[in-house]
Amino acid sequence: MLHRGKVYLVGAGPGDPGLITVRGLNLLRQAEVLIYDRLVHPDLVAEAPDDAVRIYVGKESGWHCMPQERINRLLVTSAQQGAVVVRLKGGDPFVFGRGGEEAQALVEAGIPFEVVPGVSSAVAVPAYAGIPLTHRKVASSFAVITGHEEAEKEESSLPWGELATAVDTLVVLMGVKSLPQIVQQLLSAGRSIETPVALIRQGTTAEQYTIIGTLADIVVKAEAVKLAPPVVTVIGEVVKLREQLHWFSELVSEEKSKIKRQKAKIETGDWRLESQSETFSTLGFRP
Amino acid sequence: MLHRGKVYLVGAGPGDPGLITVRGLNLLRQAEVLIYDRLVHPDLVAEAPDDAVRIYVGKESGWHCMPQERINRLLVTSAQQGAVVVRLKGGDPFVFGRGGEEAQALVEAGIPFEVVPGVSSAVAVPAYAGIPLTHRKVASSFAVITGHEEAEKEESSLPWGELATAVDTLVVLMGVKSLPQIVQQLLSAGRSIETPVALIRQGTTAEQYTIIGTLADIVVKAEAVKLAPPVVTVIGEVVKLREQLHWFSELVSEEKSKIKRQKAKIETGDWRLESQSETFSTLGFRP
Repeated sequence: MLHRGKVYLVGAGPGDPGLITVRGLNLLRQAEVLIYDRLVHPDLVAEAPDDAVRIYVGKESGWHCMPQERINRLLVTSAQQGAVVVRLKGGDPFVFGRGGEEAQALVEAGIPFEVVPGVSSAVAVPAYAGIPLTHRKVASSFAVITGHEEAEKEESSLPWGELATAVDTLVVLMGVKSLPQIVQQLLSAGRSIETPVALIRQGTTAEQYTIIGTLADIVVKAEAVKLAPPVVTVIGEVVKLREQLHWFSELVSEEKSKIKRQKAKIETGDWRLESQSETFSTLGFRP
Repeated sequence: MLHRGKVYLVGAGPGDPGLITVRGLNLLRQAEVLIYDRLVHPDLVAEAPDDAVRIYVGKESGWHCMPQERINRLLVTSAQQGAVVVRLKGGDPFVFGRGGEEAQALVEAGIPFEVVPGVSSAVAVPAYAGIPLTHRKVASSFAVITGHEEAEKEESSLPWGELATAVDTLVVLMGVKSLPQIVQQLLSAGRSIETPVALIRQGTTAEQYTIIGTLADIVVKAEAVKLAPPVVTVIGEVVKLREQLHWFSELVSEEKSKIKRQKAKIETGDWRLESQSETFSTLGFRP
């Protein structure tokens, strides 16, 4: 039984809709008001009941569709009207998701809430690219930082000098504009120019695209393909494990060639394409 | 359709069984061989088919039930026999989960595998304690380190000097034995003695237990209650947000008093206790 007049801050996971939690999906299916972001997969939005009120408050990089204060007010007023409110956010609500701010607004208004953590892009996107953030022989610590808010400021307020050597693996979320600056600061702080770097775009989806380089050449490589955000950047020796562990890109190309073969068949009268491509895009991405 | 002779490295999430991913649960329900750890919730183990082979390879802190090399061999031979193998690990398989090592063993043996990321305890346990790891006004970076492997070594190999000031929030997994040493190193490196610290035991379960202190008094407080592992330690200003945002402990005490009230009723002939306590412990913890 769900509490009416309550807000559920739910993490949608990193892109692949199958990575939402069981509890998150259960709540989504009982939502009366669904308030969701740009990075939420459409298949998840479709899981809310047909008569649920759906409100898009998406944020483009560097441009906010709805200011945070208005989102906070919307959560409060929806709950005050007695609705079961699901606030669905990409990744995890408490990792760069402003979930903390929304929870504070709810507490201040006396609205009960729950947090349903999600699989964070910071962990899952590297995993889909074949990169474990830690490995007993390679890395025993990692840090997650946002390069996004940096780009809005004049100067970087992050202590890159310490960050460069404090942890084995660095994960930077949405740091494409600030990449040259980040690389420069890591080099100045003494991180080796041979340090491997991965840039992963559209991680955990069929469009996942990965660029591998080192601190020496990653900026040039990213510019060459005009890489657009959102991008997850991984810096550290663990990136090398991808050579061996790149399971997902293999899977996607297998799936794509399967669909291509079936497309060829359909042109000669085979009927199976529809069901196959359905499998490729339904909840869970793969069955 | 599942591939036979394949291994799925699945994250079980942090404790609350409802935090497994939809894809993870789907795979678990189709497992022919299930190989699982100590930190996996029994409700999840029960979700595998009745005729699945269940193999426990649990690890107690400081004592390994089965050496990693034997687990690797078990994964390989189970897949070679043509089984759908689910390797279910607490938290996320690629965050201190040795999933990278298992994946490498599979690649070397020519066994196909997939990774299904899980909600990491490093993020979800603080969230259930009411602590967001980041917050625009308080913290824009966090690091996750393991204190466990440190305790086995003579001296700490982690660069505490840099860690102390590189990130706003520090999350230490299983670092109870090394807590005095960690606190000392952070203080030596110039982190304020007033820095708030949270120790969270049994996070995301009904037994969740949290101790709040500062670098000045947390060691004494932990010793006073003889806190046993596994513990998630959070160090940084975000810990203060708990005062306002402690949603889960409230929920648990509400649920417990509800059950208590119903127990009183059952003694006077009410029949509803059974269904209520079922709700409390079934998949998803709350419906």
